[in-house]
Amino acid sequence: MAGPVVGIDLGGTKIFGALVDPDRPGLSAVIDDAKVSTPGGSAADVAAAVVDVVRGLDARPVAVGVGTPGVVDPGSGRVLVAPNLPGFDEPVDLGAHLSAELGCPVVVANDVNVAAMGEVRFGAAAGATDVLALWMGTGLGGALVLDGSLRVGPSGLAGEIGHTVVVPDGRRCGCGGRGHLEAYIGRRSMEEEARRRHADGEPTMLVDLAGAKPMKSKVWKRAYEDGDAVARALVDEGIQHLGVTVANVALTVDVASVVIGGGLGERFGPLAAERIGHTLQVLRFAGPPPTITVAKLGDHAGALGAAVLAAARR
Amino acid sequence: MAGPVVGIDLGGTKIFGALVDPDRPGLSAVIDDAKVSTPGGSAADVAAAVVDVVRGLDARPVAVGVGTPGVVDPGSGRVLVAPNLPGFDEPVDLGAHLSAELGCPVVVANDVNVAAMGEVRFGAAAGATDVLALWMGTGLGGALVLDGSLRVGPSGLAGEIGHTVVVPDGRRCGCGGRGHLEAYIGRRSMEEEARRRHADGEPTMLVDLAGAKPMKSKVWKRAYEDGDAVARALVDEGIQHLGVTVANVALTVDVASVVIGGGLGERFGPLAAERIGHTLQVLRFAGPPPTITVAKLGDHAGALGAAVLAAARR
Repeated sequence: MAGPVVGIDLGGTKIFGALVDPDRPGLSAVIDDAKVSTPGGSAADVAAAVVDVVRGLDARPVAVGVGTPGVVDPGSGRVLVAPNLPGFDEPVDLGAHLSAELGCPVVVANDVNVAAMGEVRFGAAAGATDVLALWMGTGLGGALVLDGSLRVGPSGLAGEIGHTVVVPDGRRCGCGGRGHLEAYIGRRSMEEEARRRHADGEPTMLVDLAGAKPMKSKVWKRAYEDGDAVARALVDEGIQHLGVTVANVALTVDVASVVIGGGLGERFGPLAAERIGHTLQVLRFAGPPPTITVAKLGDHAGALGAAVLAAARR
Repeated sequence: MAGPVVGIDLGGTKIFGALVDPDRPGLSAVIDDAKVSTPGGSAADVAAAVVDVVRGLDARPVAVGVGTPGVVDPGSGRVLVAPNLPGFDEPVDLGAHLSAELGCPVVVANDVNVAAMGEVRFGAAAGATDVLALWMGTGLGGALVLDGSLRVGPSGLAGEIGHTVVVPDGRRCGCGGRGHLEAYIGRRSMEEEARRRHADGEPTMLVDLAGAKPMKSKVWKRAYEDGDAVARALVDEGIQHLGVTVANVALTVDVASVVIGGGLGERFGPLAAERIGHTLQVLRFAGPPPTITVAKLGDHAGALGAAVLAAARR
């Protein structure tokens, strides 16, 4: 059944919904959109806010897709755990609940996965069928699109390159593991390391710029451009590890495109693309190295990608 | 169209063909089989020998699958380069040629890929849908089965974990790269390293047992079991790197099963399975770690896997 679909980007601070005609190219696919703050309280409050966003759009959708942080059970659309969403510290049957409320199929998937799908269908990797997406933000998210479809996998973890090991017994990751890629190129881990070095006497403007607040991507960018030694050392080291990982994944899974997105990805995308591209040239075992692009849908990537998943259920 | 298919394992020394009823379980799927030596000479001679094997079997197949060493162009069934086959040092249109001769669809794929498919459908991973196969032999081959289908990828390289980097700027690989997994756990590279250490004065029975001939898997096994220091050091180090790679791939691609095969895999399979299993337990980010099994179809894996690919073309 053809007809418009709705894609929802469900985040810890805001809920963004877009009414989408999946047959139109790029951002012209967005017919209408709406944004509300994510309510505090319970999972039921969050679900009700999603329903309100969908009902407030210009037309009734024939299917809805939702991108959410956390781990989603691939079969049922159950959100197993999403610490960034109020009330989602235990499993929530979000897909089934929304489907009953809205009277149409609802598909739920991980937010990085849907953002990657948005960039593949409408954005930086439009037309590509085999893509690795890197979402550089607080953590390091990843997603795989293979033969044109999102790779989910039996445990729903496909694409989680942030928690692969790049340095055996290396730097501690936020998840408790050691030597994970995210420990080197996730913003939260990089901040911890920067503050540790600052406390050990290494001068860095990162701490002066951020103060007691989180070190945002723009702080990293500013310090890096000013030649701050700690910012340079941490970003350069992180991107180096990222390059090797991308080369390894691109060979193992065989992807033709790499897309870099996320907050840190927006600030460091061109630099990362150039460095990773160089690493790919050097390390490539055979065949042409994948092309690398920087995400271009910004905040719309998640909602558009969720709409793509919904369109497959029409 | 139902009916029997033929799977061919095309190797540098022998050509093994099996007439297969893909609907029967395990080795009972083999209705008839035949083996000939691979002729020297030209690619045409090799292709003619394959045709003879197929025609000599008990029934005419409705489709044929061929597993070959080397790199295969995924779309056309063209063998781009296979240094181990006489006359295959430049591209050979093997699929098209055999199809014209035999009058039925012919699918050609990499030998490790088809062996993995054999183990997934008929052998150690029967019933599994998402599998990483490791083929430990002269080199280290790999293959991915995702959602029940062989992952080929746009450049036909999917599964090539042997040439991923495990030690940046590390030991030289046979392909010329540095720090590749195969440089640590491929038999050819391990032999080079053992002979280098022997020449540097480290005592090892590996060189005494092998003499001037290639160090076969049974030599490695014998020396390892006798506590030979060089054999222990190289095998243990290689399996450790293999374990980290398996953990990383299992997370990134999300597989539920790992199968270990190949000559070295047969000798060291149980040890490798135990060690890799331990590494997976320690490194697993979330969800249950994949199960690990040792291949059980032996020489039949390739022909049976090729038959599976053929059956999909019936």
